[in-house]
Amino acid sequence: MDKYDKIVDLAKRRGFFWPSSEIYGGVAGFLDFGPMGTLLKRNVERRWREAFIHRHHGLVYEVETPVVMPSRVFEASGHVDHFTDVVVECLSCHKRFRADHVILEQAGDIQGIEGMTTEQLDATIKEKGVRCSECGGKLGKVTTFNLLFRTSIGPYSENVAYMRPEAAQGMFVNFKNIYTTMRERLPMGLAQIGKVLRNEISPRQGPIRLREFTIMEIEFFFDPESPNCELLGEVGDKKLRLLTEDLVAAGKTDPKEVTVEEAVKKKMILSEWQAYFMALSTDFVSGLGAPHDSQMFVAKLASERAHYSAQTFDQVVKLDRWGWVEVSGHAYRTAYDVSRHQQFSAQDLSVFKKFEKPQKEKALVARPKVSVISAECKSDTGRVLAAIKGSGAKGLMELLRSGSTVINGVTVRPGYVEFIEEEQTIAGRRFVPHVAEPSFGADRLTYLAMECAYTEKEKRIVLRLPRSVAPVQVSVFPLVNKDGIRENALEIQNLIRADGFLSDFDDAGSIGRRYARSDEIGAPLAITVDYQTLQDGTVTVRDRDTWEQSRISVKDLTGYLREYYRR
Amino acid sequence: MDKYDKIVDLAKRRGFFWPSSEIYGGVAGFLDFGPMGTLLKRNVERRWREAFIHRHHGLVYEVETPVVMPSRVFEASGHVDHFTDVVVECLSCHKRFRADHVILEQAGDIQGIEGMTTEQLDATIKEKGVRCSECGGKLGKVTTFNLLFRTSIGPYSENVAYMRPEAAQGMFVNFKNIYTTMRERLPMGLAQIGKVLRNEISPRQGPIRLREFTIMEIEFFFDPESPNCELLGEVGDKKLRLLTEDLVAAGKTDPKEVTVEEAVKKKMILSEWQAYFMALSTDFVSGLGAPHDSQMFVAKLASERAHYSAQTFDQVVKLDRWGWVEVSGHAYRTAYDVSRHQQFSAQDLSVFKKFEKPQKEKALVARPKVSVISAECKSDTGRVLAAIKGSGAKGLMELLRSGSTVINGVTVRPGYVEFIEEEQTIAGRRFVPHVAEPSFGADRLTYLAMECAYTEKEKRIVLRLPRSVAPVQVSVFPLVNKDGIRENALEIQNLIRADGFLSDFDDAGSIGRRYARSDEIGAPLAITVDYQTLQDGTVTVRDRDTWEQSRISVKDLTGYLREYYRR
Repeated sequence: MDKYDKIVDLAKRRGFFWPSSEIYGGVAGFLDFGPMGTLLKRNVERRWREAFIHRHHGLVYEVETPVVMPSRVFEASGHVDHFTDVVVECLSCHKRFRADHVILEQAGDIQGIEGMTTEQLDATIKEKGVRCSECGGKLGKVTTFNLLFRTSIGPYSENVAYMRPEAAQGMFVNFKNIYTTMRERLPMGLAQIGKVLRNEISPRQGPIRLREFTIMEIEFFFDPESPNCELLGEVGDKKLRLLTEDLVAAGKTDPKEVTVEEAVKKKMILSEWQAYFMALSTDFVSGLGAPHDSQMFVAKLASERAHYSAQTFDQVVKLDRWGWVEVSGHAYRTAYDVSRHQQFSAQDLSVFKKFEKPQKEKALVARPKVSVISAECKSDTGRVLAAIKGSGAKGLMELLRSGSTVINGVTVRPGYVEFIEEEQTIAGRRFVPHVAEPSFGADRLTYLAMECAYTEKEKRIVLRLPRSVAPVQVSVFPLVNKDGIRENALEIQNLIRADGFLSDFDDAGSIGRRYARSDEIGAPLAITVDYQTLQDGTVTVRDRDTWEQSRISVKDLTGYLREYYRR
Repeated sequence: MDKYDKIVDLAKRRGFFWPSSEIYGGVAGFLDFGPMGTLLKRNVERRWREAFIHRHHGLVYEVETPVVMPSRVFEASGHVDHFTDVVVECLSCHKRFRADHVILEQAGDIQGIEGMTTEQLDATIKEKGVRCSECGGKLGKVTTFNLLFRTSIGPYSENVAYMRPEAAQGMFVNFKNIYTTMRERLPMGLAQIGKVLRNEISPRQGPIRLREFTIMEIEFFFDPESPNCELLGEVGDKKLRLLTEDLVAAGKTDPKEVTVEEAVKKKMILSEWQAYFMALSTDFVSGLGAPHDSQMFVAKLASERAHYSAQTFDQVVKLDRWGWVEVSGHAYRTAYDVSRHQQFSAQDLSVFKKFEKPQKEKALVARPKVSVISAECKSDTGRVLAAIKGSGAKGLMELLRSGSTVINGVTVRPGYVEFIEEEQTIAGRRFVPHVAEPSFGADRLTYLAMECAYTEKEKRIVLRLPRSVAPVQVSVFPLVNKDGIRENALEIQNLIRADGFLSDFDDAGSIGRRYARSDEIGAPLAITVDYQTLQDGTVTVRDRDTWEQSRISVKDLTGYLREYYRR
């Protein structure tokens, strides 16, 4: 058993996670979280909320939008056209595979396979003699498969809708509205923690590749002409391990370690806000237990990037079985999404920024020569004047350069207009904000925390989860279930609970077995109530990692826990 | 404008909620929550988690299961067959309506309409002359419409799946597994907070009737032979306002007010655990601001109950426009769901409960008279003995009462068997647990909290949300943005934030306008930093409800807030 198998085994046995609908044979790509897993995942989400939302209140706001959104949203976002994988079907057994995966499995690494067209993949299958990995049959033509889960809303099946593959679109369609409500300030981030679905063709990596998972995402809107991050100073000297586009293109796998400041100065990261969030992400993932040197940010090549991104870094962490696995994505989405929704909805989603003081600006103006026009056009004069007024000065000058032109049914001659440069007063400027997006998978991070915490000690499993994410904070054991010891232990549990600590009461089996169980769920501390407790009011507190025990007075217990958990 | 319209208006203007995908014209039954609404909803969820899960840790566990589940799950649960509404289409304009709604709208109240068959509804439409409410056209035949949102998993469209209409099934399919993991103890509750979807035919009540909403649900499993709730004493003298089945059937609308103890003793509530949760629910809903006398529990008549329920109470709260609206449902689901999954999955989902000591039990035993059989049946003797052994003693006795019978191709005569009562030793008993289910809608409750808090004072809106659910705890205002006052205010905000309080910094517009804004989002306190702050280190603290102001020293501020928020 490798580490992955051991964790999956532990996860099932101790109530962390397992395949969904298991009594019906399980469903690939869906996971159920049990009591311990749910507590752990909630803690991962809480830490993210603290790190990315709460500390930025007034700058970043959490919102909540539906999982199901109408087709139009994903037509605008480009997902209906572009959110596809390549699929190929066996002509004999009719099993379907992800085309690139089946090729890689059988033909080994092939450069640039991520960017290949279906025709190129067909050719590669032929050239390499790739066949069905189930039955060895001949493979059909490669086609594309849209990864959106499809449904329809209401009693009319033609009202197509999709389950969102990212929380982002719910924030883009609401940007303008919330911008207005929250007093028209930029930069402004919108954040969301919620379920998303991607209909993967054949996911086989348990918690690493899910069809339904929880995303934690920020869309951070800023003025592209004021792209500076005012908080960059707070993280300027933090270290990032970067595998830049250059290095990736050159086939390198060792990242450069640079400070955030340097990465921004040398334009390795295009957006300062993106750099800021990458620094926070490093701290966040470290806080879940991943060592700094098993993390890095890998740039996506242009051919691999999503259709909306000008620069993307994947934050990857090295896992025992799966190698470097993406735990967050950092995309510089520019003005793409809001512009698209502006176009598809025909709503003005741009923002207006007043200049500190109105600015003078030279502008080309088309001034009609009214006397010439009225002399020549007579009763059409009004229509000609309207035609001139209704045209942009620049475009009209261009048109008239090659002679007369017809606008709205009337002829406009070059002699009707004079073009002059005029100084105008401009109050501000209208633009669509740019967006930096950090986006995390909560389920993968939950698994990651478990793998990073997994250790064995004297042939037993100890899950050394960081104190702030451990599902249970204290285990409470009565040494025996008689002589009032059980009641005493329950009272102590109530005391701890009243102070806001989550404790697990366990009175079954030997103390040794109970310690082992407590270590397996990663409870940092275990308290045992025994006969001495009845005499002197002290309990044994045992440390999960050192297995050391000390006696602490019950009356000092909550103070001890507060100190231990830094509350 | 009635209260509902006023709240919807406020909700949009201040970032609470609004129709989803509004830039595309909105989608009925889907809501977007903005910055304030999301904070409020998270607080509603947090309070529920505290009241129903955290205080019961060790007894109730939170779990998380997917929104999308395979078809088989909902075949077993009965939703594929029974989770339907009645729909009717206009033959002219082809608009579709919920049949019972369109009838009620045009023909007024009709007793028993909830239980009518499609044929009965057809007859009612004819009799009452009900027509299309859009175009006045003739209506077609009433049909049923399944409310499950349908999709498919993976690249094969035949893998039908549905979005869950309740979180419950994810807990039923996992019951046995988690029961085993959590040391085989009953009672045990599983809880879940998550998205569910119901494809309502034409929802028109904003946050009150949604197609996608957040459910907060417990499935509480207990031994039907030990149905007592050990926590009932804690709530025994709490008052419940009950409209029992008798009262409902008699057309009464005034509830009886009884203590929880009385309701259980008089069998008004069948399950003690259900009664316990109903008591918690009353406190919970009161804590969101609903007065006790605008709440009650209404029993569902047998004809109105869901297919799985032996008794159901809806907790309803009186709203200004919508009248009595359900905010939670309390169903006694008995062993229905787990039994159905046991049947459909062919897995043993029952639990085994060992008796304290093995019990002697009298049982009917069929003892074959071997000498008689071998004499008569010769070479068939073995088959006859097997037939007798394979039959239950009780059933066999029944069969033989009316003479000989044929079992598996051999004839068994009454003279072949003698029936005796034998004492047997039984170690324990195997059973499928019963389930009590409290189930809440978080979105409706979020709206409810707003409606209960809505007041007007001197023509301004004041949202008097309870302290523990208000989205923002403190507003912070610099009196002016100069002379270091803004910086001072920002420092105070940091101080408050470091102590875990959520504060909203507002430096735009007059102080009066800022107070008004703060009252509209329901911030209980507002702090103003002014010139006096620079001199004596005090700030103005203003109370949302009384509008009274007092001066408090900055160094006492966090202590003051802790006291105010009882932390």
